[in-house]
Amino acid sequence: MILKELRFDVMRANKEIVRLGLVGREEASLTLGNVSGIDKSRSCVAIKPSGVPYPSLTPQDVVVVNIQGYPLEGARKPSVDTPIHLEIYRNFKDVCAIVHAHANYSSSFAQAGVPIDCLGTTHADYFYGPIPVVPVLKKELVEKDYEANLGKAIVETFKKNNINPLEVPACLLQHHGLFAWGRTLSEALRNAVALEKVAEMNFITLGLNSKIKPIPSYLHDKHYLRKHGGKAYYGQ
Amino acid sequence: MILKELRFDVMRANKEIVRLGLVGREEASLTLGNVSGIDKSRSCVAIKPSGVPYPSLTPQDVVVVNIQGYPLEGARKPSVDTPIHLEIYRNFKDVCAIVHAHANYSSSFAQAGVPIDCLGTTHADYFYGPIPVVPVLKKELVEKDYEANLGKAIVETFKKNNINPLEVPACLLQHHGLFAWGRTLSEALRNAVALEKVAEMNFITLGLNSKIKPIPSYLHDKHYLRKHGGKAYYGQ
Amino acid sequence: MILKELRFDVMRANKEIVRLGLVGREEASLTLGNVSGIDKSRSCVAIKPSGVPYPSLTPQDVVVVNIQGYPLEGARKPSVDTPIHLEIYRNFKDVCAIVHAHANYSSSFAQAGVPIDCLGTTHADYFYGPIPVVPVLKKELVEKDYEANLGKAIVETFKKNNINPLEVPACLLQHHGLFAWGRTLSEALRNAVALEKVAEMNFITLGLNSKIKPIPSYLHDKHYLRKHGGKAYYGQ
Amino acid sequence: MILKELRFDVMRANKEIVRLGLVGREEASLTLGNVSGIDKSRSCVAIKPSGVPYPSLTPQDVVVVNIQGYPLEGARKPSVDTPIHLEIYRNFKDVCAIVHAHANYSSSFAQAGVPIDCLGTTHADYFYGPIPVVPVLKKELVEKDYEANLGKAIVETFKKNNINPLEVPACLLQHHGLFAWGRTLSEALRNAVALEKVAEMNFITLGLNSKIKPIPSYLHDKHYLRKHGGKAYYGQ
Repeated sequence: MILKELRFDVMRANKEIVRLGLVGREEASLTLGNVSGIDKSRSCVAIKPSGVPYPSLTPQDVVVVNIQGYPLEGARKPSVDTPIHLEIYRNFKDVCAIVHAHANYSSSFAQAGVPIDCLGTTHADYFYGPIPVVPVLKKELVEKDYEANLGKAIVETFKKNNINPLEVPACLLQHHGLFAWGRTLSEALRNAVALEKVAEMNFITLGLNSKIKPIPSYLHDKHYLRKHGGKAYYGQ
Repeated sequence: MILKELRFDVMRANKEIVRLGLVGREEASLTLGNVSGIDKSRSCVAIKPSGVPYPSLTPQDVVVVNIQGYPLEGARKPSVDTPIHLEIYRNFKDVCAIVHAHANYSSSFAQAGVPIDCLGTTHADYFYGPIPVVPVLKKELVEKDYEANLGKAIVETFKKNNINPLEVPACLLQHHGLFAWGRTLSEALRNAVALEKVAEMNFITLGLNSKIKPIPSYLHDKHYLRKHGGKAYYGQ
Repeated sequence: MILKELRFDVMRANKEIVRLGLVGREEASLTLGNVSGIDKSRSCVAIKPSGVPYPSLTPQDVVVVNIQGYPLEGARKPSVDTPIHLEIYRNFKDVCAIVHAHANYSSSFAQAGVPIDCLGTTHADYFYGPIPVVPVLKKELVEKDYEANLGKAIVETFKKNNINPLEVPACLLQHHGLFAWGRTLSEALRNAVALEKVAEMNFITLGLNSKIKPIPSYLHDKHYLRKHGGKAYYGQ
Repeated sequence: MILKELRFDVMRANKEIVRLGLVGREEASLTLGNVSGIDKSRSCVAIKPSGVPYPSLTPQDVVVVNIQGYPLEGARKPSVDTPIHLEIYRNFKDVCAIVHAHANYSSSFAQAGVPIDCLGTTHADYFYGPIPVVPVLKKELVEKDYEANLGKAIVETFKKNNINPLEVPACLLQHHGLFAWGRTLSEALRNAVALEKVAEMNFITLGLNSKIKPIPSYLHDKHYLRKHGGKAYYGQ
């Protein structure tokens, strides 16, 4: 078995998204999310197999494809979302792990088409800017090569708006769900959890004050940069 | 004991609706839901007995009735909702398992009389159209043969609106709760869980944007058909 | 030790209100609720001691007082809310167990001063009418004999509005929390859990449709009476 | 190892904020909170080390600094929030333990800049007045000595508004999160849990009635003083 360690870690990360509440409370029987990781050479991607329930997932089940999507090892079909993951890996050079999930609050912002603005320092601790909404695809892009086109739309949204994907390591797919990523599997999971927490808090905040504005940029800078900048000194 | 396996499976599915949060958090002492299954010959239905708490349920407790409701085996009375289940089995030919529950979000949409529109791909992955509300019955239909009339109203709602019950395997009873079904017990449970998750997400989405419209039909088609259509290729 | 069995049951019921989420998620360190039971002769009441955390509660800790509040056995002080419980026992003759809790949704309706109307059959299955709000006491009734006056206000609210306390076995104290009761400890607990579930569902329902009206009385009658009336046949 | 007992207790209290849901459901991988305690001489403070995940925390990891922030023992860096804790200890003489957390409801009130008014007796049982919002700092106070300035702003808010920090043992930092404190670690934890519960209930209450007013002062007095006043007699 090639990439034994990566497959084991990807298997564990896929089980984690259930435990962390990212695919919905207790809904182990729904398969509304998937996690992948890329190897150091950036030539092989290990990803959840298609349709396998999380609790029964084994390292053998994890599928390995090359960066073009050609299957290298694994008896199962890779997740239907594989082309989205590959498009991200091909374009966001430092991203080594990706999480996709239909977590309740993030996906509701996606359904409403509302970006997740930075309303507090929890957001600023993890994301250096608002979480963008990748607009719903036009008909022809849905009907042919849908998943690859979704990946391209994510990349385009970040490029067009000059967003650094390592500074804002997440996005919402309109009417769909969340993607989050990182330099490691645990960073990608952490960003997905932080996104869902921030989405829940923004929902509550907007319920208390629908006119609320994002925090001042000097506060956003301070929190993000004390944790992630060149002079980072953060740690709670 | 006849239908030993079905009774065991129906018992387990009734316990599952508690674990899956469909009858409310921790409320094992309330009996706000029931599950049934039909045998292959479509002549016998196994269903939760009346008023027995879920944790103490045994296969022996599960009641078997024939398709007309005549008790075949089991010392206990069948669930008061048995005539609703039977009406569904008699009319929706491929349905082999039914879940009824007062899950919080679905039942709140039912209480508000608001259908669950398709606002995102989570919905589209499981349901090929909005979840209809079966209108509250008139006085005379409540006072006599209430439960059978509820079953008839469900069937009528699907027939009148040309909804295929296998494509939209769930409905809301106005001012009451949810019914979901499937070709197997686990499919029926999965549809009930998906419905409750979608209801929660729609509540949040409507809180963020009360004017939100259903997703474009080409996106709904894509997601439903890549998973359930003749050319299905889905699997996360 | 007198009333050994009752004290054991009251101890267990006090621990149950934590497990059932009635005093808040995980908040074992807050003592925002208490349960009591009366013996068959209706002369002795067993109630939670004052300020003891639920997990460490033993049958010995449970305090026994007579119906006038005179302590009969137990080294500890009875709950500060004892006079409320006693007033209810003295006036509602068939009530044998009482639960008080600051459960989140019920207490929020109490804080808002909004009665819990019957918006669906979940409510109708447990309560034969809306859950009344007992208005906040005037200054002089708070300053002297506060707890006894609260008990009197509960009784007065039911008498003035001709509500049968066994048909509507719960109320909200304005700006405070819930009281629920029953003919047994498990019935009282069940009514408290049903109340909190109905409160949560009404909050969601009102969020979806703020103009929603109570269900038709024939439907309320049907659900309540098929379960609790002389010709009851209910059981899910 | 100096202050062995305090370090053990501080370690345990830091793990408690996860279990009590104060840093978010399941999010053990986020470090959105910290707890500290001061020794009896008020010269040494034990606090969470910077960036260490809660589950792996040991007493050795807990850092001891003197009241000016000079590190006394411990191989790790103290939490980035240490200057805030120290400022509180230097000014609020009876405070012996402090909790900081980004709990969802409290932090959402902080994000919205809305104080937590006393809308019910749950609040009055724990806090003798509304929970104030400490306003967001000006640019120059964020850019230099941010954490010390946050501590000063907390102290100033209490002094300027004549709030006794033992009567209102908590505050919200605008756009940030909660601080709660007490005379012991368990009191500080209890106050943080009570604050989060009250925040959740106020969110629900304001959803039901956006015009709701604080409770009458005689009711607030009664509940707070029967529990905390010189003539306290409270205990549920």
